[in-house]
Amino acid sequence: MNFCSHCGSSRIEFRVPDGDNLRRHVCAECGTVHYLNPKIVVGCLPEWEDRVLLCRRAIEPRHGLWTLPAGFLENGESVTAGAIRETTEEAGARVAIGELYSLITLASIGQVYMMFRARLADLDFAPGPESLDVRLFREDEIPWEDLAFRTITRTLRSFFLDRKTGGFPLRLSVLERKPPRGPLHPHESGR
Amino acid sequence: MNFCSHCGSSRIEFRVPDGDNLRRHVCAECGTVHYLNPKIVVGCLPEWEDRVLLCRRAIEPRHGLWTLPAGFLENGESVTAGAIRETTEEAGARVAIGELYSLITLASIGQVYMMFRARLADLDFAPGPESLDVRLFREDEIPWEDLAFRTITRTLRSFFLDRKTGGFPLRLSVLERKPPRGPLHPHESGR
Repeated sequence: MNFCSHCGSSRIEFRVPDGDNLRRHVCAECGTVHYLNPKIVVGCLPEWEDRVLLCRRAIEPRHGLWTLPAGFLENGESVTAGAIRETTEEAGARVAIGELYSLITLASIGQVYMMFRARLADLDFAPGPESLDVRLFREDEIPWEDLAFRTITRTLRSFFLDRKTGGFPLRLSVLERKPPRGPLHPHESGR
Repeated sequence: MNFCSHCGSSRIEFRVPDGDNLRRHVCAECGTVHYLNPKIVVGCLPEWEDRVLLCRRAIEPRHGLWTLPAGFLENGESVTAGAIRETTEEAGARVAIGELYSLITLASIGQVYMMFRARLADLDFAPGPESLDVRLFREDEIPWEDLAFRTITRTLRSFFLDRKTGGFPLRLSVLERKPPRGPLHPHESGR
């Protein structure tokens, strides 16, 4: 933030405002406090029989890697409406949305992921402008090494474990900053 | 938004950026797209035996009305950490946090409420700077006509209904714009 979006001044200070306890961007000219808040990412885990739908990303970040359909929630939109919209936009797919399944805070980048279970209505799907490909995968076909985000890996791993028992409780977790690259623990994939 | 926070230009247009499908604030000078996203409000529904804890607001909006402890999630904070922090700040209370219980989209003002069930650790609570009073209420003592927000009314109504059956599934809903003031339906309270 270089300029105040309210008055245009460049006198932006990063300090604790009166009565607050965290540092914020404050305009020294007009006093406006500019709050930065976490963003919500909503998406679906669409199922068809024993398979799940993944999209291959046509955009950065993580161009060419696989993900569940998901994106930023818009103002004026409910969380389920946003998850359905992203699934339509990225996979051209129609879903019957189910329960909230995965709720992951990505603390270091200020994002909160909300992934819903969903049933594909039919097999008439196709990649949207942000996808290179859309496909259904059985558990043993999931491209674990080529998933785009740790939130997606975690959601899919929980899903396949929970599917064995048939119960899908809300899985709530936190992902901290990604560890720096280096020698990997034998059981880590690095993503 | 009057000025671009990136370059300081006042040439802010409200239009659909290339490759997008919603109108955004776009700087005609440097091209920065300024996205506005929904904010997350996190809070607790703290229980002690058959009573729940409410705070009386010392700040606007809704000064003097009662609410559950809740507030905006901060960057770098998990949703449960935020709910616990707000409970400490507003009610001076320590809680053992439980399941996510109420997830309400306030579409018209771009907020998503996440309220968690919680158990008070002890009775050593006291109003923080944003509260006039903190008290425990049995169901028949809840000040229904003096609750601060519709999200709080809805969360408490669901809670007392669910408590009769002992099951607390995630309650997911949407609140649309508040209807204009006027003659009320016989079963409406107007809040």
